[in-house]
Amino acid sequence: MTDALPSWNDGAAKSAILDFVARTTREGGPDFIPPEQRIVVFDNDGTLWCEFPLQVQVFFALAEVKRLAQQDPSLLTKPAFKAMIDGDLKTLMSLPKKEVFEPAFATHAGMTVEEFHANATRWLRHAEHPKLQRPFLHNAYVPQRELLDLLRAQGYKTYIVTGGGVEFVRVVAETLYGIPPEQVVGSSTKMKLEDGEGGMVLRKLPELGSFDDREEKVVNIALHIGRRPVFAFGNSDGDLAMIRYTLAGDGPRMAWYLHHDDAAREFAYDRDFKLSALREGLDRAAELGIGVVSMKKDWNRVFAD
Amino acid sequence: MTDALPSWNDGAAKSAILDFVARTTREGGPDFIPPEQRIVVFDNDGTLWCEFPLQVQVFFALAEVKRLAQQDPSLLTKPAFKAMIDGDLKTLMSLPKKEVFEPAFATHAGMTVEEFHANATRWLRHAEHPKLQRPFLHNAYVPQRELLDLLRAQGYKTYIVTGGGVEFVRVVAETLYGIPPEQVVGSSTKMKLEDGEGGMVLRKLPELGSFDDREEKVVNIALHIGRRPVFAFGNSDGDLAMIRYTLAGDGPRMAWYLHHDDAAREFAYDRDFKLSALREGLDRAAELGIGVVSMKKDWNRVFAD
Repeated sequence: MTDALPSWNDGAAKSAILDFVARTTREGGPDFIPPEQRIVVFDNDGTLWCEFPLQVQVFFALAEVKRLAQQDPSLLTKPAFKAMIDGDLKTLMSLPKKEVFEPAFATHAGMTVEEFHANATRWLRHAEHPKLQRPFLHNAYVPQRELLDLLRAQGYKTYIVTGGGVEFVRVVAETLYGIPPEQVVGSSTKMKLEDGEGGMVLRKLPELGSFDDREEKVVNIALHIGRRPVFAFGNSDGDLAMIRYTLAGDGPRMAWYLHHDDAAREFAYDRDFKLSALREGLDRAAELGIGVVSMKKDWNRVFAD
Repeated sequence: MTDALPSWNDGAAKSAILDFVARTTREGGPDFIPPEQRIVVFDNDGTLWCEFPLQVQVFFALAEVKRLAQQDPSLLTKPAFKAMIDGDLKTLMSLPKKEVFEPAFATHAGMTVEEFHANATRWLRHAEHPKLQRPFLHNAYVPQRELLDLLRAQGYKTYIVTGGGVEFVRVVAETLYGIPPEQVVGSSTKMKLEDGEGGMVLRKLPELGSFDDREEKVVNIALHIGRRPVFAFGNSDGDLAMIRYTLAGDGPRMAWYLHHDDAAREFAYDRDFKLSALREGLDRAAELGIGVVSMKKDWNRVFAD
């Protein structure tokens, strides 16, 4: 039999996942989950691709922010904006996630959704991770792609539920993870429909619509998907509500935290990385029935190259 | 060859639809649309089921409103609430859509999403349309179900984009139209995640999140689907923005208005039904390239029984 998860080392995590998939898809078995209820949700930053020392979208904002500050100097009063313009990663890493992401989203204001898509695509084509020294697009985790493929092959519908901007993540989700735009749920800015010469276009406004983190992830799952997921994967306290919501349903359930404990191949961080802390989730994982995947021990490979 | 649309009379509308589906799915042809871009959006009230003299959800609110007014008598100051309590259909029919729907949504506040689902399911099981004198659940249009089935059989992904409450429409969408919850986009109230004894539940708040009508339909299509649809079907001015957004994209496009001109089998209304007026859409249909389906002439059957 072929190994559907070749980048996963044999061990408790891999066995539990393979067992879950097998028993929930065995027709007539006690743990069978009907196909339409096979909803899985994955966080993106730090769960499907590298988020350290800053989330990819924050690097994108760093590249865009100077243009925006020229248009509106009053933005400089916000700590995250100032730190972005100064390229002060240390300060950015120490701020709460929403304080960094909200200004990051604001760097896209004024663009149409199509322009934003083109801009992000262009930037992503060349932009490199400063520490890993390779394109951001090469920083998706191979073991997770294998897991997504396995779940889909068994009739699971895979969703991303991300604190990142929904349009930004959609730019990469199909290629990197095989996930179509309509299965990406994320943070969003308000938009305005314009009825101009070029036809009807949506323009992004500098006002946050939804910051898709913590409890808001659950609200957005209800709004966009309308079913309680049966399987969830995250890597920070921002995913804890979504994970607990998943586990609280009836029938077979499974949820995982990815633990970044691999300084050699990626990074080692949890409690002290303010932009994406794993603290409460780690302390309560056992009590709450959340599995912990060790990047170091459970994966024999992290990236494709 | 079997007729995929037996409830549609032969004529311009049926031919145009069959031709569109054939040429957009012919691989190698000039109008071929890749499967992942085959997104279609249907309005619900008045497009997929009967909405006259009031939308089904407003009838549901009529049944719920007295309980709510006892809890909070100040609600009686809103005209729609007062009309609901008095059973004053005439006044309700004369109010703008948002003024009727917002109080209707408020009747569900305080329930968990699961409780709301159970409540609506229970009510729908027995509630009857006062004029057609049969269950609301029997008021879906057979020709539209045939069209949805045809589109899906040809690789189209069918969405409902409704001004109705997203949870309400999800209760019926799978059974009546074969559309799963995650493909229903609608109006929504804000929700709050509660971490109680019974596990994590979402409770509906008496505050509107999104009123999914007119331009907001387009914003929500971008947010939930992330692709511009290629085919749209509506029946009121509330659908015009979504229809125009659909038609404004590149490549083959198609959009329709259902015209309620069948007083014998359903109802005849357009300009003067304030809760769902078709006025601008009708005046500009030809200019904008929107087809008009006559319920009377294009359909040989309206309901299943």
